Amino acid sequence: MTSIKKEMYHDIITGFSKLNKDEKIKFISQFFKSPHQTEEEIRSYWYIDPHIQQRFDEFSENTISNFYMPYSLAPNFLINDQMYIVPMVIEESSVVAAASHAAKYWAERGGFHSEIIATEKLGQVHFYWEGNPQKLQELFPKFKVKCLQETTGITENMRKRGGGIKDISLRNMSEVERNYYQIWASFDTCDSMGANFINTCLETFAHCLIDFFETDADLRTEKKPQIIMSILSNYTPNCLVRTWVACPIEQLTGFGTLSAQEFAWRFERAVHIARIDPYRAATHNKGIFNGIDAVVLATGNDFRAVEAGGHTFACRDGHYRSLSQVSLSGGMFNFSLTLPLALGVVGGLTNLHPMVKCSLELLQNPSSETLMMIASAAGLANNFSAVRSLTTTGIQKGHMKMHLYNMLNHFTATEEQKNLAVEHFKDHVISYNAVRTFLEELQN
Amino acid sequence: MTSIKKEMYHDIITGFSKLNKDEKIKFISQFFKSPHQTEEEIRSYWYIDPHIQQRFDEFSENTISNFYMPYSLAPNFLINDQMYIVPMVIEESSVVAAASHAAKYWAERGGFHSEIIATEKLGQVHFYWEGNPQKLQELFPKFKVKCLQETTGITENMRKRGGGIKDISLRNMSEVERNYYQIWASFDTCDSMGANFINTCLETFAHCLIDFFETDADLRTEKKPQIIMSILSNYTPNCLVRTWVACPIEQLTGFGTLSAQEFAWRFERAVHIARIDPYRAATHNKGIFNGIDAVVLATGNDFRAVEAGGHTFACRDGHYRSLSQVSLSGGMFNFSLTLPLALGVVGGLTNLHPMVKCSLELLQNPSSETLMMIASAAGLANNFSAVRSLTTTGIQKGHMKMHLYNMLNHFTATEEQKNLAVEHFKDHVISYNAVRTFLEELQN
Repeated sequence: MTSIKKEMYHDIITGFSKLNKDEKIKFISQFFKSPHQTEEEIRSYWYIDPHIQQRFDEFSENTISNFYMPYSLAPNFLINDQMYIVPMVIEESSVVAAASHAAKYWAERGGFHSEIIATEKLGQVHFYWEGNPQKLQELFPKFKVKCLQETTGITENMRKRGGGIKDISLRNMSEVERNYYQIWASFDTCDSMGANFINTCLETFAHCLIDFFETDADLRTEKKPQIIMSILSNYTPNCLVRTWVACPIEQLTGFGTLSAQEFAWRFERAVHIARIDPYRAATHNKGIFNGIDAVVLATGNDFRAVEAGGHTFACRDGHYRSLSQVSLSGGMFNFSLTLPLALGVVGGLTNLHPMVKCSLELLQNPSSETLMMIASAAGLANNFSAVRSLTTTGIQKGHMKMHLYNMLNHFTATEEQKNLAVEHFKDHVISYNAVRTFLEELQN
Repeated sequence: MTSIKKEMYHDIITGFSKLNKDEKIKFISQFFKSPHQTEEEIRSYWYIDPHIQQRFDEFSENTISNFYMPYSLAPNFLINDQMYIVPMVIEESSVVAAASHAAKYWAERGGFHSEIIATEKLGQVHFYWEGNPQKLQELFPKFKVKCLQETTGITENMRKRGGGIKDISLRNMSEVERNYYQIWASFDTCDSMGANFINTCLETFAHCLIDFFETDADLRTEKKPQIIMSILSNYTPNCLVRTWVACPIEQLTGFGTLSAQEFAWRFERAVHIARIDPYRAATHNKGIFNGIDAVVLATGNDFRAVEAGGHTFACRDGHYRSLSQVSLSGGMFNFSLTLPLALGVVGGLTNLHPMVKCSLELLQNPSSETLMMIASAAGLANNFSAVRSLTTTGIQKGHMKMHLYNMLNHFTATEEQKNLAVEHFKDHVISYNAVRTFLEELQN
């Protein structure tokens, strides 16, 4: 079915990364049905200013073009009495609408409340060593001083901003694994995510450890440690934000025929189910990350890091659970989300990507702590909307309506047909087949 | 510091979603330091053809522009004897370079091997019911027939393609939670991710349940069930792919002064540590998702769904662990990755996003199963490169080099300065300070 010349694909390509962008595009276009058209199309996504395009190209390697993600706005996020219009970057339909609806609903009920519980980042140097753990523990304070000294130059800037290395300790893991230890370090990276800073410190600690065993009088005769690796942890349970909404149960109005009490009961059951059943918890938390990741992307942060930290936190007690919780005590509805979020507003892409700069200015150039609050509010908003839809009308009604445009575009419907379809499907079940049939009938 | 007119932000905005794109941009631009310039900049990211731009706009809601992500290529992915150039969309530097290096390394050693273990998707109808569980269980086969009948129209297309509903069963959860049950359904969604299909089926099952209790002679006198929600699960442990690389240990060459045996030992230790320590596992798996998500994005799939399923799978035994495993038995190095991946190559964005279409054609229009293999190979490749760097030179050396371009752009270095910097930092430690100092010295 495809016209790809498979024989051209057999040999290993050497020097591909050294080709320039045009040569790369030319090279791959030969594997397409319409090489010329493919080349044109790939180039058509380049930014108009080649200098700025070059900057996009240099974010990654072997870049040939840009992948467009929709850039959207969710207004009415009232967070700790400050109003925000939140930028969201996400390819999935209905996420931004859901966030906006929940934001408005809660803005009318006091908005989101948020607090930073802690902002500690972590890193580890993993090593094996055969010897007396107690001796290592006793010498560790001396080693720690050496580590701090050796990293003075690296930490200077961060210390000026009020951050730096918070602590360095020895973690004896030999009960889990013979001869296995960690240098366990915590950091305050201020407004940066801090990955490069932390990793540079950790690699220095590793060098210090080797050096310490070679030079310290008490250790020179001991076996040498085997350093396996030095790397930050994306699991940061002490870089934690808690965000919540709350109102008297009777104010939970607006859900059709459902009474506020009934809605609260159903909502509470749904969140409870996501606490006891991992099959439901995965999807429940996925909905939270729909909102969070959209803000993470729009602000130039790393969503893989955020996902890894959040999901690991979700199973910290040995059972994978919902990240959000609801309580209905004292006549109050209280819906909260607690999760680790290691975000930055300086460094990385934040000053390089023009739309990231735009996002940060729209958010009034927040600190990393404020950004943690905003992103988690977006997560809680999306979670509220998803659970609300699921427990009331069902998710398909709203979702398929959002999805209708995509289907209409897929069938290359005209503007007029689109308008007729939107009208028709207000009171008809939307499905792929139904949309096709509707359009076919229009055309006949 | 910012000139944002905070007073304008206080009131809840109504009707924002009804503004057209220009009005939305005008509205938010008032909160920027340079409103006119902001408007111009936001518009400058629109696609040249307004019809295609409209399609991007309709992927989401309240869209005002596009967010550019670098679109890259990783060549030399030999998977089950077929060579692929893999499209990757990712904002993080060094991910594509790492994937390409690992792909080439393993192409020279037999490539990636991959097998689909299963492709079953899951969904649940959650409900509460007060009554005799045994009675419900006994009547369930009758209910199941009703469900299948009622969904005939919905499943018709899927059945034509060889898929549909695989099974429907009753899951009695009342031991965990009083009166709590699930209708547990499994699906084969062929080449689509199938979210809308599954949710539409599940909502029909929920209606059937209500109807069944109203019409069945044996149930009419019983209490009515309370349906809480009907929704697919993103945790799909039976939609599973296993991908691996293998070679005799002595072929693990190319790591400087490190012998193949020594490299294998260090690599094995590093992966083992990620199995026993969740702090390391989170970051280890994050590296796997760097590769997977880049392919997921490039092919128009949903990375939040993939992350949720993968991380839940990582803690299935009650301990959050590495998704990859290594064995060194019989003189062989065997490195494998097993994870759930629910991907689609039809529906959703796949036929609408021009660069997604380009990705799929470049991958020779794969089936969803082949795409599972390709994405997991990218994940394993990135994991191999990350663990290789960590256990040999350390991650900072390679990573900071990749990051150098971003820093040079941040300091608005000229082309000539960039070339000099690249040369200089070949044998100097790269840091933010060092780059700044180097450029300052050049300018003096």
